[in-house]
Formats: sequence, structure tokens, C-alpha cells
Amino acid sequence: MPESVGDIGEFGLIHRIDKLIHTEGIQCEEVILGIGDDTACFRPRVGYELLVTCDCMVEGRHYLTEYITSLDLGRRAMALNISDVGAMGGRPRYALVSLGLRGDTPVRDVEDMYRGFMAELNPFGGAIIGGNITKSEGGAFIDITLIGEVEEGRMVCRSTARPGDVVLVTGYPGQAATGLQMLLHAKDKENLQDHSLTQAYTTPTHRAREGAAIAATGCATAMIDTSDGFLGDLGHICEESGVGAELVQEKLPLSKALKRAAAALGRDPHALFFQDSDDYELIVTCRSEHTEKIQAAVAKTYEGPVSEVGTITDKAGEIAVIRRDGSRQALTAKGWDHFAKTDS
Amino acid sequence: MPESVGDIGEFGLIHRIDKLIHTEGIQCEEVILGIGDDTACFRPRVGYELLVTCDCMVEGRHYLTEYITSLDLGRRAMALNISDVGAMGGRPRYALVSLGLRGDTPVRDVEDMYRGFMAELNPFGGAIIGGNITKSEGGAFIDITLIGEVEEGRMVCRSTARPGDVVLVTGYPGQAATGLQMLLHAKDKENLQDHSLTQAYTTPTHRAREGAAIAATGCATAMIDTSDGFLGDLGHICEESGVGAELVQEKLPLSKALKRAAAALGRDPHALFFQDSDDYELIVTCRSEHTEKIQAAVAKTYEGPVSEVGTITDKAGEIAVIRRDGSRQALTAKGWDHFAKTDS
Repeated sequence: MPESVGDIGEFGLIHRIDKLIHTEGIQCEEVILGIGDDTACFRPRVGYELLVTCDCMVEGRHYLTEYITSLDLGRRAMALNISDVGAMGGRPRYALVSLGLRGDTPVRDVEDMYRGFMAELNPFGGAIIGGNITKSEGGAFIDITLIGEVEEGRMVCRSTARPGDVVLVTGYPGQAATGLQMLLHAKDKENLQDHSLTQAYTTPTHRAREGAAIAATGCATAMIDTSDGFLGDLGHICEESGVGAELVQEKLPLSKALKRAAAALGRDPHALFFQDSDDYELIVTCRSEHTEKIQAAVAKTYEGPVSEVGTITDKAGEIAVIRRDGSRQALTAKGWDHFAKTDS
Repeated sequence: MPESVGDIGEFGLIHRIDKLIHTEGIQCEEVILGIGDDTACFRPRVGYELLVTCDCMVEGRHYLTEYITSLDLGRRAMALNISDVGAMGGRPRYALVSLGLRGDTPVRDVEDMYRGFMAELNPFGGAIIGGNITKSEGGAFIDITLIGEVEEGRMVCRSTARPGDVVLVTGYPGQAATGLQMLLHAKDKENLQDHSLTQAYTTPTHRAREGAAIAATGCATAMIDTSDGFLGDLGHICEESGVGAELVQEKLPLSKALKRAAAALGRDPHALFFQDSDDYELIVTCRSEHTEKIQAAVAKTYEGPVSEVGTITDKAGEIAVIRRDGSRQALTAKGWDHFAKTDS
């Protein structure tokens, strides 16, 4: 039996984590006090605003332990918070990790999870400065609060898109959602572990570096990550900005892998692209003449596409797609199924 | 059937909470962006360091819904985070609330919980600026991250007590622990709701104002709140400072109510004072000549006692109590039971 969390207790576990963070984590000069007191303490840098986000993953709902290692789980939990900071144009700096754990959880699994957190944070010079450990026999959860920083005035919100702006998206939304469907429903699960789509689900990438680079251009009018799915998040931009959007079906970046997997699964590839996704691409709006500047900013660190997929309209809350035959189909965040039916 | 969280969904609930916070919460001028984007954003004040803490309450483990209203639950969850910030000498400013909720939770219960959060935060000019809502059918949890601020150089840690310092404690530790024992074990539960000890459990007070006032004197050498119980937290000071402590039994502030309840419960009043507590008093160390200055700082906002209960020694990790008969009894964080046996 491996050593469990129950064996070493809360304080024993905190000591182990503290040691691990000191050995394998980043030491930030702004951090005055890390783990081990009533609070952590840091000195904010002058000239920067602070971004704060909090995202929680519940076992069984947001992850399935049989399909993901503790290391990857840690990476994923931190990556989705990093994605939120990046989608505002910021750089991740200080994380607090709150864990709900069952008493029989192996200590090494918790340590691997922290290695995953640090694998994502270290490249940004970010550090875990605090958190909480509690027993939760009803089910495990990982709740991370991440504090980032952004130069004063450089933050990009979701509420500031303007009619006439173009809509850009990085990468290939829907990869992770398709990977999850493969894990759940593929007939042959033998070779799935190293498949690019299942990897997109288990170890999602984010575009935080690219988000910061986009913000630094000063050209983005709005930005959001696709954590609620492409359509859901474009919907957030439209709702908060009081605008609409018109997409062009043939411009939507559907990867070949996604199309092949959709065919094998008997699923509509557009539904996988539009709906609930577990990948973290960026949707960006900007004036048409700034498209190339934003594409160039992204290209410094990401080789994939930044696709222009449509335009922002003044029809508040209305999202539509121009289909290949030239017809116009209204969509809502819940509307893709309807679209799929008439298009199939 | 009252309207449930499942009825209105995640986004519906976020809208309701956002509205409630706008109506009944505090608007801070430093907050650039509150709930509703990928992250919140605030501008840190120049000349201040930021304190960050995170505490989680799990249903069934940290609270029992049959003994506490949603409003009081919200107050308690926020109060214990406020206590941590106060124990460093800081002022609570920005909170992120992460909730795990069952789908059948009534919306009004969640709203009441937020009213509880704000009832604690508003007096400090603190605001809820973000958070997360997720379904958690395995059991509810409330995870709060609180960011406070403290003037540069004024923070008081637990690791800086020095041999020869006196040990002070505010109020009457053990009140809440006794209240919980009454709720669980009292034969007559009829009149418990308005009992001062059960109220100490359901709506604990903190000493955050007093902690900030103590820090402002510059006289405290170390400070901690009693969230792990008096002995546990004095143990934290000793361990982190590399010192020991000698307590004087007759100076320990046991309230008359605690003594009466202990007698009725058949419990040792000292065990209730020393061990796991759910109240949030402060343990402070300082040079003997500064005791009155600290007592005066506390007296501005709190009428209760600041008792001098012992001294810090150079015997690292050793906590002892001088009993009424003059004998010396060694204690450890787990040692009170042993003491109780020889003293009864």
C-alpha cells in the first residue's frame, strides 16, 4: 500500500508539498512569504494591474481519474487558469491551490499533481504561494486561484468588441472535445493514449503567451478563451459587448484529425467545433487592418493558424453562419444542433 | 418547491449573484473589473503589500447544515478568511468565492450565503470580485480566496517570536468548540439557538480589526489566529520561531459560560480551551514592556480581555504549563489529554 494522505495527515502533507515547491518551484523575488503562515504575502510591481481568476475541477464531473495521470491532471487544472489570465493579456504570477482529497489518496499522487502545477507555472516565473488541504470523502476537487499581472491599461476584456471588427480564432477549437468523445465512445481504445486529440483533452495547451503578445499590440478590441466552447464564448463576447457576429462556415478551422474522428464517431464535425470544449484557444476581435499585426504577434510563439472566421455585427446577441451554399443560418449558444440537422 | 440552482443553471446563478453584489456589496475604486470576464482586475495601492489566503469548508466536515442557516454559513466562511488576514495585521479587500453545489440547492440559500459573505466584508470596504460555481453532487463546499493589504513592513508573522517575550491571547478561546459540543451532545437542545456558546460556533467573531491595530503598534513580535486551537497555534508559533512556551494555568482565560457548559457536558474545561476550536482569537507575542500598548490598541474596538498567559522560552518546541500547585507539566499539541488525566 503506498503512503496515503490519511497516513501523514494535513500538516505532514503540507510539509511535503512545501519541500517539493522549494525544490522544484520558482522563487519569485516579489514573494515575501509563501506557504506556512496565516496568509502568503507579495509585493505587487509598480505599473501593473493584477488579474485574479479561480477555477475548480471536480472529480467525475471535470475529470475522470481512469483517463488522466495525476501529473497531467495538475497540468490541466493549472493550464485552464493560466488560459484565463492569458485571455486578458496577462502573465501568471501567484497561485493558491485548494485541494479536497480522500484520506486514501496516495501522497505520491498529490506530489505528482503539484509537479503538474509547477510544470505549467514555472515557464512564466509563476509560483505556488499558498492554498488549503481538506478531507473530502464525497469526492475530490482541485480549486486554483491564480493571480496574474498586466501592464496598466493593456488588459483586453470581452465586453469591448465593436461592429465591423473581424473575428479571429487561434488553433483548432474542438480538438479536446473530440478527444474526450473518443475516450468515451471509440470502439478500439488500444492506441488512444498517444492520439493527438486525446492528448488535446488530457494535456490541453493554452495560448497565454499569445494572449499577452496580442494585448501588447494594443490592437485587440476584445478577447476571450474558448473554455465554454467556441460558440459559448463568442456568445459571451456578443452579450457583454452588445453586438452580434456573422461567421463563414468554410473559414472555420476544422482539423483533418477532427474530421476523421468525427466520421469514425458518427458525429457532426461542426458540432464538435462549436460546442462545449476542453481546449483553450483564443477568440480575438480587432479592426480588419490589424489582423496581420495580431497574427504576427501570435506567430512568435505559436506555429498554428490564427484564422479570420467572421465579423462582428450590430445585431445584438445574434450569431449567424453563412453556409457554403450562401444561405444564412441563425445560431445561438444552444443552436448548433438545429443547424446540424438542416445541414446534414 | 423553491427555485433551485439546477433550474436556473450556472450562468443564471452567476447573473443573480452579480446583481446581488451590485445591490448590496461595496464598490471599491481600485476594482477595474469584477465578476463577468475571464478574470477580475484591480489596481494595487502603492505602499502596500498584498496578503493572500484561502480556506475551504466542506459540508459534513466543517459545517452541519442542520445547525446553521445559509446566512450564518456565509458569514462564518468569510470570517475565518478575514481572521487569517487580520492575524497578519492586514485589512481584507478582495474576495473570490468558489462554490461546489448540489443541483437541488435552493437559489435563495445561495443568495443568503452571499449576503453572509458581504455582511462580513462590507465593514472593511472589501468586495467580492470573482469566483466559480460548479456542481458537486458528492457534497457541497465553500472555498474562499481573500486578498488583503498591509502597509509595507507592518506584517506580523508567526515565525518571529523571541525567548523572553510574553504570550498574550484575546478573548476566551474554546467558546465555539464548547458550543459545538453542546449542539452535538446536550440533553436539552431546546434553548441552544441563542446560547452565547453555540452562537460563538455558528457566528464566530474574528479579531481582524484588532490584528491590524496590533500590527500598527509595531510592537508585536509574532501573531497567529487560533483556528487550529490555542495549543495547536501556539505550537505553530513555537515550531516556526524555533522557541518554546511556558503557560500559567491560573492565567488562562476560561469564561464562566465555558466552565458551566463543561461541567454539564462532563468535559475538562482546559481541554475545551486548548484543543481544536472554531473560534478565531489572536495569540500575540511581544516584549513585556509592550503589553499595555497592545492591550490599548485592542481596546479601541474590543471590550474583552487581552490576557497575558505565559512567556516564550528558548526550549525549542516545548510547551509547558505551570499548574496551580506550582508543578510543571509538559504539553504538546496532542498532549492535553495526558495533562487532563493527571490534573483531574
